[in-house]
Amino acid sequence: MVKKLNYGMVGGSLSAFIGAVHRIGASFDGKTHLVAGCFSPNEKSNRECGEYFELDPERVYASYTEMAEKEAAREDGIDFVTISIPNNHHYEAAKAFLVNKIHVLCEKPLCFTVGEAEELKKLAEENHVLFCVNYSYSGTNMVKEARELIQKGMIGEVINVNAEYLQEYLVDDIGQSEEKMVKLSSWRKDPEVAGISNCVGDIGTHIEHTVAYMTGLKLKRVAAKLDYFGQPLDLNANILVEFENGAHGVFCSSQVCVGHMNGLVVRIFGTEGAIEWVQENPNILSVTFKGQPTQIYNRGMGYVGTRSQETNRLPSGHPEGVYEAFANIYRAWVEAILKLKNNEALTEADMDFPSIDAGIEGVKFITACVESSKLDAQWITIN
Amino acid sequence: MVKKLNYGMVGGSLSAFIGAVHRIGASFDGKTHLVAGCFSPNEKSNRECGEYFELDPERVYASYTEMAEKEAAREDGIDFVTISIPNNHHYEAAKAFLVNKIHVLCEKPLCFTVGEAEELKKLAEENHVLFCVNYSYSGTNMVKEARELIQKGMIGEVINVNAEYLQEYLVDDIGQSEEKMVKLSSWRKDPEVAGISNCVGDIGTHIEHTVAYMTGLKLKRVAAKLDYFGQPLDLNANILVEFENGAHGVFCSSQVCVGHMNGLVVRIFGTEGAIEWVQENPNILSVTFKGQPTQIYNRGMGYVGTRSQETNRLPSGHPEGVYEAFANIYRAWVEAILKLKNNEALTEADMDFPSIDAGIEGVKFITACVESSKLDAQWITIN
Amino acid sequence: MVKKLNYGMVGGSLSAFIGAVHRIGASFDGKTHLVAGCFSPNEKSNRECGEYFELDPERVYASYTEMAEKEAAREDGIDFVTISIPNNHHYEAAKAFLVNKIHVLCEKPLCFTVGEAEELKKLAEENHVLFCVNYSYSGTNMVKEARELIQKGMIGEVINVNAEYLQEYLVDDIGQSEEKMVKLSSWRKDPEVAGISNCVGDIGTHIEHTVAYMTGLKLKRVAAKLDYFGQPLDLNANILVEFENGAHGVFCSSQVCVGHMNGLVVRIFGTEGAIEWVQENPNILSVTFKGQPTQIYNRGMGYVGTRSQETNRLPSGHPEGVYEAFANIYRAWVEAILKLKNNEALTEADMDFPSIDAGIEGVKFITACVESSKLDAQWITIN
Amino acid sequence: MVKKLNYGMVGGSLSAFIGAVHRIGASFDGKTHLVAGCFSPNEKSNRECGEYFELDPERVYASYTEMAEKEAAREDGIDFVTISIPNNHHYEAAKAFLVNKIHVLCEKPLCFTVGEAEELKKLAEENHVLFCVNYSYSGTNMVKEARELIQKGMIGEVINVNAEYLQEYLVDDIGQSEEKMVKLSSWRKDPEVAGISNCVGDIGTHIEHTVAYMTGLKLKRVAAKLDYFGQPLDLNANILVEFENGAHGVFCSSQVCVGHMNGLVVRIFGTEGAIEWVQENPNILSVTFKGQPTQIYNRGMGYVGTRSQETNRLPSGHPEGVYEAFANIYRAWVEAILKLKNNEALTEADMDFPSIDAGIEGVKFITACVESSKLDAQWITIN
Repeated sequence: MVKKLNYGMVGGSLSAFIGAVHRIGASFDGKTHLVAGCFSPNEKSNRECGEYFELDPERVYASYTEMAEKEAAREDGIDFVTISIPNNHHYEAAKAFLVNKIHVLCEKPLCFTVGEAEELKKLAEENHVLFCVNYSYSGTNMVKEARELIQKGMIGEVINVNAEYLQEYLVDDIGQSEEKMVKLSSWRKDPEVAGISNCVGDIGTHIEHTVAYMTGLKLKRVAAKLDYFGQPLDLNANILVEFENGAHGVFCSSQVCVGHMNGLVVRIFGTEGAIEWVQENPNILSVTFKGQPTQIYNRGMGYVGTRSQETNRLPSGHPEGVYEAFANIYRAWVEAILKLKNNEALTEADMDFPSIDAGIEGVKFITACVESSKLDAQWITIN
Repeated sequence: MVKKLNYGMVGGSLSAFIGAVHRIGASFDGKTHLVAGCFSPNEKSNRECGEYFELDPERVYASYTEMAEKEAAREDGIDFVTISIPNNHHYEAAKAFLVNKIHVLCEKPLCFTVGEAEELKKLAEENHVLFCVNYSYSGTNMVKEARELIQKGMIGEVINVNAEYLQEYLVDDIGQSEEKMVKLSSWRKDPEVAGISNCVGDIGTHIEHTVAYMTGLKLKRVAAKLDYFGQPLDLNANILVEFENGAHGVFCSSQVCVGHMNGLVVRIFGTEGAIEWVQENPNILSVTFKGQPTQIYNRGMGYVGTRSQETNRLPSGHPEGVYEAFANIYRAWVEAILKLKNNEALTEADMDFPSIDAGIEGVKFITACVESSKLDAQWITIN
Repeated sequence: MVKKLNYGMVGGSLSAFIGAVHRIGASFDGKTHLVAGCFSPNEKSNRECGEYFELDPERVYASYTEMAEKEAAREDGIDFVTISIPNNHHYEAAKAFLVNKIHVLCEKPLCFTVGEAEELKKLAEENHVLFCVNYSYSGTNMVKEARELIQKGMIGEVINVNAEYLQEYLVDDIGQSEEKMVKLSSWRKDPEVAGISNCVGDIGTHIEHTVAYMTGLKLKRVAAKLDYFGQPLDLNANILVEFENGAHGVFCSSQVCVGHMNGLVVRIFGTEGAIEWVQENPNILSVTFKGQPTQIYNRGMGYVGTRSQETNRLPSGHPEGVYEAFANIYRAWVEAILKLKNNEALTEADMDFPSIDAGIEGVKFITACVESSKLDAQWITIN
Repeated sequence: MVKKLNYGMVGGSLSAFIGAVHRIGASFDGKTHLVAGCFSPNEKSNRECGEYFELDPERVYASYTEMAEKEAAREDGIDFVTISIPNNHHYEAAKAFLVNKIHVLCEKPLCFTVGEAEELKKLAEENHVLFCVNYSYSGTNMVKEARELIQKGMIGEVINVNAEYLQEYLVDDIGQSEEKMVKLSSWRKDPEVAGISNCVGDIGTHIEHTVAYMTGLKLKRVAAKLDYFGQPLDLNANILVEFENGAHGVFCSSQVCVGHMNGLVVRIFGTEGAIEWVQENPNILSVTFKGQPTQIYNRGMGYVGTRSQETNRLPSGHPEGVYEAFANIYRAWVEAILKLKNNEALTEADMDFPSIDAGIEGVKFITACVESSKLDAQWITIN
C-alpha cells in the first residue's frame, strides 16, 4: 500500500512567501516528499532552491513543460504538482501537467477566462486526474465547523450574507503615478500578469469561495461597483449579491481600507440563527440561535462537529493559523490521491478540498464583477 | 436673562419607552420643565401622564392641534414641543406647532414624502422657529469625536464607507401570517402608519444620518435591494451608495439578522486613515492612521477633541449610553432656543443638533431606496 | 397613598460630577423632588445650587447639622438625604440625619473605622430608618443578572474569584513631590480627608462589594500588598483573598495601571460554570457552563432572569451606563421608603440596594488590607 | 560550511501531540533532519515511529541511554536531541545526552529539584553543549515585540505585573475519586511522574518565564495559595509576587477556571506605559503609553521592532500560532548550533531561546510556590 507521495513545485522559490506556506503545509502530516521543481524563471534562484531542498539536480527544471513531461516519463515521477506562480501562467502550467496525467494543485484564481477554466476541467476529467484550486481559507478548522452547522440546518435557511475582505496595503497607490506605487505584489496590479482584476481577483474571490463552501449556495448574479482610483486595475469593490435561493447580501473587497490587514469576515444569517467567522482570529466561531445569547465556539472543544474534530491538530486555546489551513487542504488532497493510487473508492467526503468547480466559480465571479462595474453596477448573471 | 425652558410633549405616554428617554434626556442638565402634553389618544392614559408629571390639568390636551393653539396663546406657553408619535402623524403635528411659532423637536423619520418635508422646512423658516429631527446617535460623544477628526482632515479624503444597522427582533416575521407576527412595534410594519418602509425607515435612516454627520458628505445616489419576505414592508436591505465626492460604499439595514440587537456600526475609510464606531459599545472609537496601529480612543480622555470634551459628562471608563446621547441633543437644542430668547446670535456651532435638512435628507434616502428596489436595484439619484 | 418623595443633598454642588449623577439617578423614575440641600461649604456655591435647583432659599443650609434638624422639624421635611461629600465627614453627617429619623443614602466608603460603621448601624436601627451605602455597581442590570445566575446555582459552588479595578489616572504621582502631583481628586490622597487608604478605599472596596453582591459570599481573610510609591496613601494593591466557603482568589486594585480608565472586571469561577462582567462594557455578561461555549448574555433579552428584566430600561443593544446603575439603586431605595411611608411590609426583595451591612463589610475590608500590608501581607481575618 | 543539522527525539510518538509540534516546528525552516529516536517505551509504537519517519532502524533505540551513547559514537551522530517525555525522566534523559556532548532541547519543567537543575547546568558547561528548555511562548513573535519595547524603556520602569494562565479542563476532577477523574494528561496529576506540582508545574511556570522574558526581571519572592480540591496535586493557584526591582503583582494559574481553554495573559505595567498580550490571540499586542489611546500592534507591520521583524513569517493579518512559536525557538536554537559547528562566535543575540537558566528559575519558582502554600502563603524567597 502506498503511504506517501512525491510531489513537485512550479514556483515557490525561497523568496516567495506563499511557496514556503505550501511546502510547510504539505509537510505537516509527514506524507509527502518534495522531489522536483521549477521554482523560478531565474536559473540561479532555481538551482539554489534545488540545493536547499536537497533535490536531485536532474529534477530541477528550467520550464514547467519540461518538468511535466520528464516527471511523467519517470518510474518514480511526481504524484502531484503544486503550481504557485503569477496568474497569467496558471492555465498553461496546469494544462502541461494535466495532459501528462499528473494531479494538479493550483493557486487561485484558476486562470483568466471561464473558457480556459472549463477547458482545464475537461482535461482533468479526460486524463482522470484530480485538480485542487487553493482557496486556502476553506482549510480552516472553524470554517469547516461553520459549514457543518449550516449543512445540519442549525441556522435554518440562509436569508442574508454579509462578507468582506479588507486590506490596507495599497492605500498609497491612490492617485499615484506608476513609479511611486507600492511595490509589494506589484505583479498583481499589472493586467498582463494578474488578469482583469486586482482586488476582486486576489481577495474578493476568497469571499465568494468561503461563502460558497460554508453555505453550499451558488451565486445567481452580482451588481458590482469597483473603484480604480486612477490605476489600471481595481483597488476597492462593493458588490450586491444574489444567491440561487433568492437570498441577498453584500461582498466588500478592498486593498485601501486602512486599519485592516487581512480582514476576511464572513457572516451568514439564516431564519434560525447566524454564524460569524473572522479570519484574523480564526480559532473561534460566533454562533447565535435566534433569541439566544451568542455562543463563542472554540476550536478543539468536545461540542464541535465531526469534520472540525477530524481536522483538529492542537488542544483548544492553542492557536492554529494559516499553515494549518494549508495543511488541512493538503491532508485531504494527499489522502484522496493515496486512495486513488491504492485503488480505493473516493467518496464525496474524501474530496474536502476546493475542486476545479470552485476554480470555475471563482473565474465566473471575477468576470461578472468586472463586467457589472463597467455597466455601472448593472446585475450580471453568473449561474 | 432666560435660563430655563418650558416644553410639552406630543406622545410619550408612560408605556412608551422612547418618550421616557426624551423626558430624561431633556432633564439631564436641569434646564427644562415639562409643563404641557398630549401624551396619548387614550383619554385615561393621557390624564394619568398629566398626574404623574404633576401638570396643570388644563395643559393636558386631547389633541396636538388644541395644544399648539392654546399653548401659543398663553403668556407662559411652552417654548418647544417634543413630538414622539407614530410616523403618520409627524407632518400634521409638526405643522400645528410651527404655524403657532413653537419650536419643534420631532422623532425621525420626519414625514412620509419629500414634499411634506420641504413644506415643514418652509414653515419653520417663515415662522422663525427652530426644528430638530431626532437622529439621536449624532448626540453620542464619540460620534462627535469622529466628526471632528474627519473635519480636521485626519483621515484624508473619504474613499469608502461601510455601515450597517442590524437587528434580529423581526426574524420570526419571515413567512408568517399576520396574526402570528411579532407584536413589538407592530405599527412600524403597517404602511398606513409607518409609511413606505419599515426597516430602512426605522433604522436605515440612522445609518444615512450618522454617516452624513460624521463625514459631512451627502449621498448622490443609491442602488438598493430590499427584502420583504412576504410582508407588506421591508425587513432587510442591502444598499450600494455613492457620495457626492465620488466615494462608494454599502449600507446594510436589517431586522432579521440573528445575533444583532441594535447593531449600528459605521466605518469611514479615507486616504490617510479610518474610523470605526460601534453603537453597542459607544464610548470608544477605533482610529487608524495608515501604516500605524489602530488606536482605541476613549471618551473623556485628554487627547479627544473640543466637541467631545464639551459634551463629556462622566470620567473616562464610566459608560455613557443612549440617555446621554439624547441629553446632548437636548443640551444643544435648549441652549440654541435660550440664545434666541435672550436675543443672542446663533452660530453654526450652536446648531449641533440634527436640523430639518437632516430630516429632509432622511426622507429622500428612504424614498430612493424603496424606489430603487422596485426597479431591481437600479441607481436612484438623491442629490 | 404617598407616591413621591422629597429629598435633600449634602454635597453635590454644581461642579461635583458624582453629585450630578446622584440627582439624575434620583430623577430617572420621576418619583423624587429635590427640595433641600447643603451642597457646598462655600456659601456662594451653596446659594447658586439652591437657585439652579429652584429651591426655597430657607432650605439651602450652611451645615448638615442645621439641615438635619430643621428638615426634621418641618411638616414637609425631606424623606431622605443623599450624602456625597469627602469621606471624613460621612460619619458625622450620617449621624446627624439618623438621629433626626431621616433615611440616609451615603457615598462609600461609609466611614473611617469599623467602630463608627457599627455605631451608624445601631443608630439606624434605633431610629427605624433605612440606610443605603452607594456601592453603585450593584445597581447595574447585568450585575444583578450575575447574582441571580449564581443564586440559582447555575455555576455550582464558587471555587475561585479573580477581580480587579484598574485605573491609570494617578500614574504621574509615582515618586512625585506633593506640589507636582495629579490634582484630580486630590482629597482622596490626603489621609486627613480620605482615611487610611486611597486606592483600596476608593475603588478596591467596589471589588469587594460587587463580588459579595454577585456571590453572596463574605470574605474570611485577606493578605494584601499595597504599594505607596513614596506617597502617604496607597496607589496600587494586590490582594489574596479567602472566602467563608474556602474559595480563594485575587483582588487587584490600582490607580497606576496605564491603559485602564475605570476597569472593574469581576470573574467568578464555579464548579459548573463561570461568569465574567466588565464594567466598561456593562450591558453584556459572559457566561460559560463547563464544557460549553461561552455565551454572551445581552441585557434586555428574553432569556435573562427576573431581576434583570425588572430593572431593564431600554431595549437590548441600547447601552445603559452609570446613570442607570444609580437610577436602579434609587428606584429600589425610593420604593422601599414609599412602602414604609404607606405602611406596607418590606420584604428582603424590596431591599435591593446596598445596606449599611455592605458599608460595614467595606470598612472591614479596607482596614484589613491596610493592616495586612503593614505586616508584609500576613493574613488578616475579616469575618 | 555546515548548513543543516541532524537531530533525534526522546519521546514524541505518533500519538503525542506535543511531539508532533516539535517535529513540525523543527522542520519549518528546512534546516533539520530527524534521523534517530527513542520515541516510546512501547516497542511497537517506537518501531512504527521509526518507519513513519523513514529512519534507519538501527537508529530507533529502546532507551535514551543507549541512544545517547550510540549516537555520540557515530561519525554522523545527531547534533541535538529533543526531549519530550513526562517530567520524571527529564533529568536522567538530559544527563545522558549532556555527558555524551550532545546539545539538548528539553521540555519544561526542566526537572524535579533545584539541585538537579543546577547539576544539569554544570554538566552542560563542562561538556560545552547548549541547553534549551522549551518555554515555547517566548518564541511567539509578539512576545518578542513586548520584550523589545520594554527593553527600549518604552513603558518606563515596571511597577506592577498581572499575569494568568487559566484552563478549564480539570474542573471535573474537583472532589472526584481517582477512577472518575479526567483522563487527559493523567500523568500530570501523578506526583511520581509530574513532580511536586500539577498546575503550577505545567502552566504556572509559563507565566513566570513569559514575564521574565518580556521584562528581564527576576522574581525575588512569592506568597502562594494553592488549591488541591482533594487531589494529590494542585489544580488552582493564586500567587502574590515580588520582583527584584521591588515591583509587585499577581500570577494566577488554574486548570479549573471554566471558560478558559489556554488563557495565558500577561500584562506588564510601567511608569510610562503598559503592555498586554493574550496568548489565544497571539498576533496582536496592546500597547498603551500613559495618557494616550491604547494601540493595537499587529504582527508583521512596519512599525514593529527588529526582533519581531526578524521572526516574522507571514504578512500581517495572516495568523501565526503555536507551531510558529516552536519554529522560532528551533530557528534560534539551530542557528546557534550551526554557528558552533562552523566555529563562529555566538553572541547574546544568537541565544534567543530559553536557556538552562530559564529552566532553573522555573524549578525554583515551582518549588517556592508549593512551599509557600504549605506555610499558608508565607513569602518564600527565590532570588
